[in-house]
Amino acid sequence: MIQLYQFALSPFCRKVRLVLAEKKLEVELIDERYWEASSEFLRRNAAGKVPVLRIEGLTLSDSGAICEYLEETNPEPALMPKDAAARAEVRRLVAWFDDKFHKEVTSKLVYERVNKKLTRAGYPDGANVKDGVKAIKFHLDYMGWLLDRSRWLAGPDLTVADFAAAAHLSCLDYSSDVDWNRNQAVRDWYAKIKSRPAFRSILADVVPGFRPAKHYADLDF
Amino acid sequence: MIQLYQFALSPFCRKVRLVLAEKKLEVELIDERYWEASSEFLRRNAAGKVPVLRIEGLTLSDSGAICEYLEETNPEPALMPKDAAARAEVRRLVAWFDDKFHKEVTSKLVYERVNKKLTRAGYPDGANVKDGVKAIKFHLDYMGWLLDRSRWLAGPDLTVADFAAAAHLSCLDYSSDVDWNRNQAVRDWYAKIKSRPAFRSILADVVPGFRPAKHYADLDF
Repeated sequence: MIQLYQFALSPFCRKVRLVLAEKKLEVELIDERYWEASSEFLRRNAAGKVPVLRIEGLTLSDSGAICEYLEETNPEPALMPKDAAARAEVRRLVAWFDDKFHKEVTSKLVYERVNKKLTRAGYPDGANVKDGVKAIKFHLDYMGWLLDRSRWLAGPDLTVADFAAAAHLSCLDYSSDVDWNRNQAVRDWYAKIKSRPAFRSILADVVPGFRPAKHYADLDF
Repeated sequence: MIQLYQFALSPFCRKVRLVLAEKKLEVELIDERYWEASSEFLRRNAAGKVPVLRIEGLTLSDSGAICEYLEETNPEPALMPKDAAARAEVRRLVAWFDDKFHKEVTSKLVYERVNKKLTRAGYPDGANVKDGVKAIKFHLDYMGWLLDRSRWLAGPDLTVADFAAAAHLSCLDYSSDVDWNRNQAVRDWYAKIKSRPAFRSILADVVPGFRPAKHYADLDF
Protein backbone atom coordinates (compact mmCIF):
# COMPACT_ATOMS: atom_id res chain seq x y z
CA MET A 1 0.00 0.00 0.00
CA ILE A 2 1.23 3.47 -0.91
CA GLN A 3 1.41 5.91 2.00
CA LEU A 4 1.39 9.69 1.81
CA TYR A 5 2.48 11.77 4.78
CA GLN A 6 0.56 14.96 4.27
CA PHE A 7 -1.26 18.02 5.53
CA ALA A 8 -4.78 18.51 4.14
CA LEU A 9 -4.38 22.18 3.18
CA SER A 10 -0.94 21.83 1.61
CA PRO A 11 -1.21 22.54 -2.13
CA PHE A 12 1.87 20.36 -2.72
CA CYS A 13 0.22 17.37 -1.03
CA ARG A 14 -3.02 18.01 -2.90
CA LYS A 15 -1.19 18.00 -6.23
CA VAL A 16 0.33 14.60 -5.41
CA ARG A 17 -3.06 13.26 -4.24
CA LEU A 18 -4.68 14.39 -7.49
CA VAL A 19 -1.99 12.69 -9.57
CA LEU A 20 -2.29 9.47 -7.53
CA ALA A 21 -6.09 9.47 -7.84
CA GLU A 22 -6.08 10.24 -11.57
CA LYS A 23 -3.73 7.28 -12.06
CA LYS A 24 -6.01 5.14 -9.86
CA LEU A 25 -3.27 4.47 -7.33
CA GLU A 26 -4.78 3.84 -3.90
CA VAL A 27 -3.06 5.64 -1.08
CA GLU A 28 -3.23 5.74 2.68
CA LEU A 29 -3.16 9.36 3.87
CA ILE A 30 -1.25 9.98 7.09
CA ASP A 31 -1.70 13.43 8.59
CA GLU A 32 1.66 14.85 9.54
CA ARG A 33 2.04 17.70 12.01
CA TYR A 34 5.06 18.81 9.92
CA TRP A 35 5.52 22.00 11.93
CA GLU A 36 6.44 19.93 14.98
CA ALA A 37 9.25 18.33 12.95
CA SER A 38 9.44 15.12 14.97
CA SER A 39 12.70 13.23 14.66
CA GLU A 40 10.83 10.33 13.06
CA PHE A 41 9.46 12.62 10.38
CA LEU A 42 12.84 14.27 9.78
CA ARG A 43 14.29 10.81 9.23
CA ARG A 44 11.80 10.36 6.39
CA ASN A 45 12.57 13.77 4.90
CA ALA A 46 15.55 15.87 5.96
CA ALA A 47 13.84 18.94 4.50
CA GLY A 48 11.11 18.56 7.14
CA LYS A 49 8.33 19.17 4.65
CA VAL A 50 5.26 17.35 3.40
CA PRO A 51 4.48 15.54 1.13
CA VAL A 52 6.52 12.39 1.71
CA LEU A 53 5.50 9.33 -0.31
CA ARG A 54 6.28 5.75 0.63
CA ILE A 55 6.01 3.57 -2.42
CA GLU A 56 7.62 0.30 -3.48
CA GLY A 57 10.08 0.40 -0.59
CA LEU A 58 11.14 3.97 -1.43
CA THR A 59 10.68 7.13 0.59
CA LEU A 60 10.27 10.04 -1.82
CA SER A 61 10.05 13.72 -1.06
CA ASP A 62 9.57 16.97 -2.98
CA SER A 63 6.20 17.12 -4.72
CA GLY A 64 7.75 17.80 -8.14
CA ALA A 65 10.07 14.79 -7.91
CA ILE A 66 7.16 12.64 -6.68
CA CYS A 67 4.87 13.62 -9.59
CA GLU A 68 7.61 12.98 -12.17
CA TYR A 69 8.28 9.59 -10.55
CA LEU A 70 4.58 8.67 -10.69
CA GLU A 71 4.41 9.74 -14.35
CA GLU A 72 7.48 7.67 -15.25
CA THR A 73 6.38 4.54 -13.40
CA ASN A 74 2.64 4.82 -14.17
CA PRO A 75 2.46 6.48 -17.57
CA GLU A 76 -1.29 5.88 -18.08
CA PRO A 77 -3.37 7.97 -18.02
CA ALA A 78 -0.72 10.46 -19.15
CA LEU A 79 -0.48 13.74 -17.27
CA MET A 80 2.47 14.94 -19.33
CA PRO A 81 2.56 15.40 -23.11
CA LYS A 82 5.07 13.47 -25.24
CA ASP A 83 6.68 16.42 -27.02
CA ALA A 84 9.69 18.04 -25.28
CA ALA A 85 8.52 21.62 -25.89
CA ALA A 86 5.04 20.83 -24.56
CA ARG A 87 6.60 19.14 -21.52
CA ALA A 88 8.66 22.28 -20.88
CA GLU A 89 5.45 24.32 -20.91
CA VAL A 90 3.83 21.96 -18.38
CA ARG A 91 6.86 22.20 -16.11
CA ARG A 92 7.02 25.98 -16.49
CA LEU A 93 3.42 26.21 -15.32
CA VAL A 94 3.88 23.77 -12.44
CA ALA A 95 6.78 25.98 -11.30
CA TRP A 96 4.62 29.08 -11.86
CA PHE A 97 2.03 27.82 -9.39
CA ASP A 98 4.29 26.05 -6.91
CA ASP A 99 6.83 28.86 -6.83
CA LYS A 100 5.38 32.23 -7.90
CA PHE A 101 1.68 31.70 -7.10
CA HIS A 102 2.58 30.01 -3.84
CA LYS A 103 4.82 32.88 -2.78
CA GLU A 104 2.48 35.66 -3.89
CA VAL A 105 -0.92 34.17 -3.05
CA THR A 106 -1.16 30.87 -1.16
CA SER A 107 1.46 31.74 1.45
CA LYS A 108 -0.11 35.19 1.93
CA LEU A 109 -3.67 33.96 2.41
CA VAL A 110 -3.93 30.29 3.43
CA TYR A 111 -0.74 30.31 5.48
CA GLU A 112 -1.53 33.59 7.21
CA ARG A 113 -5.13 32.70 7.98
CA VAL A 114 -5.06 28.96 8.59
CA ASN A 115 -1.56 27.57 9.08
CA LYS A 116 -0.50 30.33 11.46
CA LYS A 117 -3.42 29.67 13.77
CA LEU A 118 -3.02 25.92 13.55
CA THR A 119 0.69 26.04 14.33
CA ARG A 120 0.20 28.76 16.97
CA ALA A 121 2.61 31.00 15.05
CA GLY A 122 0.68 34.18 15.79
CA TYR A 123 -1.96 36.32 14.11
CA PRO A 124 -2.37 36.92 10.37
CA ASP A 125 -0.24 39.76 9.05
CA GLY A 126 -2.70 42.25 7.53
CA ALA A 127 -0.20 43.54 4.97
CA ASN A 128 0.47 40.02 3.70
CA VAL A 129 -3.25 39.26 3.42
CA LYS A 130 -3.78 42.49 1.50
CA ASP A 131 -0.94 41.62 -0.89
CA GLY A 132 -2.40 38.15 -1.43
CA VAL A 133 -5.88 39.48 -2.15
CA LYS A 134 -4.38 41.82 -4.76
CA ALA A 135 -2.05 39.24 -6.34
CA ILE A 136 -4.68 36.54 -6.85
CA LYS A 137 -6.50 38.86 -9.29
CA PHE A 138 -3.46 39.04 -11.55
CA HIS A 139 -3.06 35.27 -11.42
CA LEU A 140 -6.72 34.57 -12.19
CA ASP A 141 -6.42 36.90 -15.18
CA TYR A 142 -3.28 35.12 -16.35
CA MET A 143 -5.03 31.75 -16.06
CA GLY A 144 -7.98 33.18 -18.00
CA TRP A 145 -5.59 34.32 -20.73
CA LEU A 146 -4.09 30.81 -20.94
CA LEU A 147 -7.54 29.21 -20.99
CA ASP A 148 -8.67 31.47 -23.84
CA ARG A 149 -5.92 29.87 -25.91
CA SER A 150 -6.43 26.20 -25.01
CA ARG A 151 -8.77 23.78 -23.33
CA TRP A 152 -6.47 23.11 -20.38
CA LEU A 153 -3.79 25.35 -18.90
CA ALA A 154 -0.83 23.88 -20.79
CA GLY A 155 -2.57 22.83 -24.01
CA PRO A 156 -5.30 20.57 -25.37
CA ASP A 157 -4.93 17.90 -22.66
CA LEU A 158 -5.23 17.76 -18.89
CA THR A 159 -1.75 17.76 -17.33
CA VAL A 160 -0.11 17.97 -13.95
CA ALA A 161 -0.04 21.77 -14.49
CA ASP A 162 -3.83 21.81 -14.12
CA PHE A 163 -3.54 19.78 -10.92
CA ALA A 164 -0.85 22.10 -9.55
CA ALA A 165 -3.09 25.11 -10.19
CA ALA A 166 -6.22 23.38 -8.88
CA ALA A 167 -4.37 22.28 -5.75
CA HIS A 168 -3.57 25.88 -4.86
CA LEU A 169 -6.98 27.24 -5.81
CA SER A 170 -8.78 24.52 -3.84
CA CYS A 171 -6.85 25.47 -0.69
CA LEU A 172 -7.79 29.11 -1.26
CA ASP A 173 -11.39 28.14 -2.00
CA TYR A 174 -11.54 26.31 1.33
CA SER A 175 -11.21 29.71 3.03
CA SER A 176 -13.36 31.57 0.44
CA ASP A 177 -10.40 33.43 -1.03
CA VAL A 178 -11.26 32.92 -4.70
CA ASP A 179 -13.60 35.30 -6.53
CA TRP A 180 -15.12 32.90 -9.06
CA ASN A 181 -16.94 35.77 -10.75
CA ARG A 182 -13.71 37.35 -11.92
CA ASN A 183 -13.09 35.14 -14.95
CA GLN A 184 -15.63 32.83 -16.58
CA ALA A 185 -12.97 30.67 -18.32
CA VAL A 186 -11.26 29.98 -14.99
CA ARG A 187 -14.60 29.17 -13.36
CA ASP A 188 -15.51 26.74 -16.14
CA TRP A 189 -12.07 25.14 -15.93
CA TYR A 190 -12.35 24.70 -12.16
CA ALA A 191 -15.88 23.26 -12.48
CA LYS A 192 -14.53 20.67 -14.94
CA ILE A 193 -11.62 19.69 -12.74
CA LYS A 194 -13.70 19.73 -9.56
CA SER A 195 -16.12 17.18 -10.99
CA ARG A 196 -13.40 14.61 -11.72
CA PRO A 197 -13.43 11.53 -9.48
CA ALA A 198 -9.81 12.37 -8.56
CA PHE A 199 -11.05 15.50 -6.78
CA ARG A 200 -13.45 13.75 -4.41
CA SER A 201 -11.04 13.20 -1.55
CA ILE A 202 -9.90 16.86 -1.73
CA LEU A 203 -13.51 18.04 -1.42
CA ALA A 204 -14.02 15.81 1.62
CA ASP A 205 -11.07 17.37 3.49
CA VAL A 206 -11.83 19.00 6.80
CA VAL A 207 -9.18 20.73 8.87
CA PRO A 208 -10.13 20.63 12.58
CA GLY A 209 -11.09 24.10 13.75
CA PHE A 210 -11.55 25.49 10.24
CA ARG A 211 -14.77 24.71 8.46
CA PRO A 212 -14.61 25.02 4.67
CA ALA A 213 -16.60 27.70 2.82
CA LYS A 214 -20.21 26.65 2.16
CA HIS A 215 -19.71 26.22 -1.58
CA TYR A 216 -16.37 24.41 -1.16
CA ALA A 217 -17.57 20.91 -2.07
CA ASP A 218 -20.44 22.10 -4.27
CA LEU A 219 -19.95 21.08 -7.90
CA ASP A 220 -22.37 23.81 -8.97
CA PHE A 221 -20.71 26.78 -7.24
CA MET B 1 22.41 30.04 -32.01
CA ILE B 2 21.00 29.42 -28.55
CA GLN B 3 20.52 32.54 -26.45
CA LEU B 4 20.31 32.76 -22.69
CA TYR B 5 18.93 35.85 -21.01
CA GLN B 6 20.67 35.82 -17.68
CA PHE B 7 22.22 37.49 -14.67
CA ALA B 8 25.76 36.38 -13.85
CA LEU B 9 25.20 35.80 -10.12
CA SER B 10 21.89 33.98 -10.48
CA PRO B 11 22.33 30.36 -9.37
CA PHE B 12 19.43 29.35 -11.64
CA CYS B 13 21.15 30.83 -14.68
CA ARG B 14 24.44 29.23 -13.69
CA LYS B 15 22.81 25.81 -13.43
CA VAL B 16 21.46 26.18 -16.98
CA ARG B 17 24.85 27.41 -18.24
CA LEU B 18 26.59 24.40 -16.69
CA VAL B 19 24.12 21.99 -18.30
CA LEU B 20 24.51 23.69 -21.70
CA ALA B 21 28.31 23.63 -21.47
CA GLU B 22 28.47 20.01 -20.29
CA LYS B 23 26.35 19.04 -23.30
CA LYS B 24 28.62 21.16 -25.52
CA LEU B 25 25.79 23.44 -26.64
CA GLU B 26 27.14 26.85 -27.54
CA VAL B 27 25.17 29.74 -26.14
CA GLU B 28 25.12 33.50 -26.44
CA LEU B 29 24.76 35.07 -22.99
CA ILE B 30 22.63 38.19 -22.83
CA ASP B 31 22.77 40.06 -19.52
CA GLU B 32 19.28 40.95 -18.40
CA ARG B 33 18.56 43.67 -15.88
CA TYR B 34 15.64 41.53 -14.71
CA TRP B 35 14.87 43.84 -11.78
CA GLU B 36 13.90 46.57 -14.22
CA ALA B 37 11.31 44.20 -15.74
CA SER B 38 11.18 45.87 -19.16
CA SER B 39 8.06 45.16 -21.19
CA GLU B 40 10.20 43.37 -23.78
CA PHE B 41 11.59 41.05 -21.15
CA LEU B 42 8.17 40.42 -19.63
CA ARG B 43 6.95 39.41 -23.07
CA ARG B 44 9.63 36.71 -23.08
CA ASN B 45 8.74 35.55 -19.57
CA ALA B 46 5.58 36.65 -17.78
CA ALA B 47 7.18 35.62 -14.48
CA GLY B 48 9.78 38.38 -14.98
CA LYS B 49 12.64 36.13 -13.96
CA VAL B 50 15.88 34.89 -15.47
CA PRO B 51 16.90 32.50 -16.98
CA VAL B 52 15.03 32.61 -20.27
CA LEU B 53 16.36 30.37 -23.04
CA ARG B 54 15.74 30.85 -26.74
CA ILE B 55 16.33 27.63 -28.57
CA GLU B 56 14.98 26.13 -31.78
CA GLY B 57 12.36 28.86 -32.13
CA LEU B 58 11.13 28.34 -28.56
CA THR B 59 11.28 30.70 -25.61
CA LEU B 60 11.64 28.64 -22.45
CA SER B 61 11.59 29.79 -18.85
CA ASP B 62 11.97 28.26 -15.40
CA SER B 63 15.42 26.76 -14.88
CA GLY B 64 14.02 23.34 -13.92
CA ALA B 65 11.89 23.11 -17.06
CA ILE B 66 14.85 24.28 -19.16
CA CYS B 67 17.23 21.65 -17.75
CA GLU B 68 14.69 18.85 -18.24
CA TYR B 69 14.15 20.06 -21.83
CA LEU B 70 17.89 20.05 -22.53
CA GLU B 71 18.20 16.55 -21.07
CA GLU B 72 15.32 15.24 -23.19
CA THR B 73 16.51 16.81 -26.42
CA ASN B 74 20.27 16.31 -25.87
CA PRO B 75 20.52 13.12 -23.85
CA GLU B 76 24.32 12.80 -24.16
CA PRO B 77 26.27 13.20 -21.99
CA ALA B 78 23.53 12.17 -19.55
CA LEU B 79 22.98 14.37 -16.50
CA MET B 80 20.08 12.25 -15.25
CA PRO B 81 20.18 8.55 -14.38
CA LYS B 82 17.92 6.08 -16.21
CA ASP B 83 16.24 4.52 -13.18
CA ALA B 84 13.04 6.23 -11.94
CA ALA B 85 14.02 6.07 -8.25
CA ALA B 86 17.47 7.52 -8.99
CA ARG B 87 15.85 10.27 -11.08
CA ALA B 88 13.56 11.10 -8.15
CA GLU B 89 16.64 11.49 -5.94
CA VAL B 90 18.26 13.86 -8.46
CA ARG B 91 15.08 15.95 -8.65
CA ARG B 92 14.71 15.95 -4.86
CA LEU B 93 18.22 17.37 -4.54
CA VAL B 94 17.75 19.93 -7.31
CA ALA B 95 14.67 21.13 -5.40
CA TRP B 96 16.67 21.02 -2.15
CA PHE B 97 19.17 23.51 -3.51
CA ASP B 98 16.88 25.65 -5.67
CA ASP B 99 14.19 25.85 -3.02
CA LYS B 100 15.49 25.23 0.51
CA PHE B 101 19.16 26.20 0.10
CA HIS B 102 18.18 29.21 -1.98
CA LYS B 103 15.71 30.40 0.63
CA GLU B 104 17.92 29.74 3.64
CA VAL B 105 21.36 30.64 2.27
CA THR B 106 21.71 32.20 -1.20
CA SER B 107 18.90 34.71 -0.76
CA LYS B 108 20.21 35.64 2.69
CA LEU B 109 23.80 36.22 1.61
CA VAL B 110 24.22 36.87 -2.11
CA TYR B 111 20.93 38.70 -2.49
CA GLU B 112 21.44 40.80 0.62
CA ARG B 113 25.03 41.71 -0.15
CA VAL B 114 25.16 41.92 -3.93
CA ASN B 115 21.72 42.05 -5.57
CA LYS B 116 20.35 44.63 -3.14
CA LYS B 117 23.19 47.03 -3.88
CA LEU B 118 23.00 46.40 -7.60
CA THR B 119 19.27 46.94 -7.76
CA ARG B 120 19.44 49.87 -5.33
CA ALA B 121 17.02 48.06 -3.04
CA GLY B 122 18.67 49.24 0.16
CA TYR B 123 21.26 47.96 2.62
CA PRO B 124 21.86 44.33 3.63
CA ASP B 125 19.63 43.18 6.47
CA GLY B 126 22.02 42.09 9.24
CA ALA B 127 19.60 39.53 10.66
CA ASN B 128 19.24 37.86 7.26
CA VAL B 129 23.00 37.73 6.75
CA LYS B 130 23.43 36.19 10.19
CA ASP B 131 20.79 33.56 9.43
CA GLY B 132 22.49 32.75 6.12
CA VAL B 133 25.92 32.39 7.72
CA LYS B 134 24.43 29.95 10.23
CA ALA B 135 22.37 27.98 7.72
CA ILE B 136 25.18 27.35 5.24
CA LYS B 137 26.99 25.29 7.90
CA PHE B 138 24.07 22.87 8.16
CA HIS B 139 23.90 22.59 4.38
CA LEU B 140 27.63 21.96 3.97
CA ASP B 141 27.36 19.23 6.60
CA TYR B 142 24.40 17.70 4.78
CA MET B 143 26.34 17.73 1.51
CA GLY B 144 29.28 16.15 3.29
CA TRP B 145 26.99 13.42 4.58
CA LEU B 146 25.73 12.74 1.04
CA LEU B 147 29.27 12.73 -0.35
CA ASP B 148 30.41 10.23 2.26
CA ARG B 149 27.90 7.82 0.74
CA SER B 150 28.57 8.38 -2.96
CA ARG B 151 30.98 9.93 -5.42
CA TRP B 152 28.55 12.63 -6.54
CA LEU B 153 25.66 14.17 -4.63
CA ALA B 154 22.91 11.95 -6.04
CA GLY B 155 24.88 8.76 -6.63
CA PRO B 156 27.81 7.34 -8.59
CA ASP B 157 27.47 9.72 -11.55
CA LEU B 158 27.57 13.48 -12.07
CA THR B 159 24.01 14.80 -12.43
CA VAL B 160 22.17 18.07 -12.69
CA ALA B 161 21.90 17.94 -8.86
CA ASP B 162 25.66 18.55 -8.66
CA PHE B 163 25.31 21.49 -11.03
CA ALA B 164 22.41 22.92 -9.02
CA ALA B 165 24.50 22.75 -5.84
CA ALA B 166 27.65 24.06 -7.52
CA ALA B 167 25.69 26.94 -9.06
CA HIS B 168 24.62 28.14 -5.61
CA LEU B 169 28.01 27.56 -3.99
CA SER B 170 29.85 29.34 -6.80
CA CYS B 171 27.68 32.44 -6.29
CA LEU B 172 28.43 32.31 -2.57
CA ASP B 173 32.11 31.71 -3.26
CA TYR B 174 32.19 34.84 -5.41
CA SER B 175 31.57 36.86 -2.26
CA SER B 176 33.73 34.62 -0.01
CA ASP B 177 30.75 33.16 1.83
CA VAL B 178 31.83 29.51 1.78
CA ASP B 179 34.11 28.09 4.46
CA TRP B 180 35.93 25.43 2.44
CA ASN B 181 37.64 24.15 5.58
CA ARG B 182 34.39 22.97 7.09
CA ASN B 183 34.09 19.70 5.19
CA GLN B 184 36.85 17.98 3.22
CA ALA B 185 34.45 15.87 1.12
CA VAL B 186 32.61 19.00 -0.03
CA ARG B 187 35.87 20.75 -0.83
CA ASP B 188 37.09 17.77 -2.89
CA TRP B 189 33.75 17.61 -4.68
CA TYR B 190 33.85 21.32 -5.52
CA ALA B 191 37.47 21.06 -6.72
CA LYS B 192 36.42 18.26 -9.09
CA ILE B 193 33.46 20.16 -10.47
CA LYS B 194 35.34 23.46 -10.66
CA SER B 195 38.01 21.93 -12.90
CA ARG B 196 35.50 20.77 -15.53
CA PRO B 197 35.59 22.68 -18.82
CA ALA B 198 31.88 23.44 -18.31
CA PHE B 199 32.82 25.60 -15.30
CA ARG B 200 35.20 27.94 -17.16
CA SER B 201 32.67 30.58 -18.14
CA ILE B 202 31.33 30.70 -14.56
CA LEU B 203 34.82 31.36 -13.22
CA ALA B 204 35.29 34.19 -15.73
CA ASP B 205 32.16 36.02 -14.56
CA VAL B 206 32.62 39.52 -13.24
CA VAL B 207 29.76 41.59 -11.90
CA PRO B 208 30.50 45.32 -12.36
CA GLY B 209 31.17 46.90 -8.99
CA PHE B 210 31.75 43.61 -7.19
CA ARG B 211 35.09 41.95 -7.60
CA PRO B 212 35.15 38.21 -6.89
CA ALA B 213 37.05 36.78 -3.94
CA LYS B 214 40.75 36.21 -4.71
CA HIS B 215 40.50 32.43 -4.75
CA TYR B 216 37.25 32.47 -6.77
CA ALA B 217 38.71 31.28 -10.09
CA ASP B 218 41.60 29.38 -8.50
CA LEU B 219 41.39 25.63 -9.17
CA ASP B 220 43.69 25.00 -6.21
CA PHE B 221 41.78 26.94 -3.55
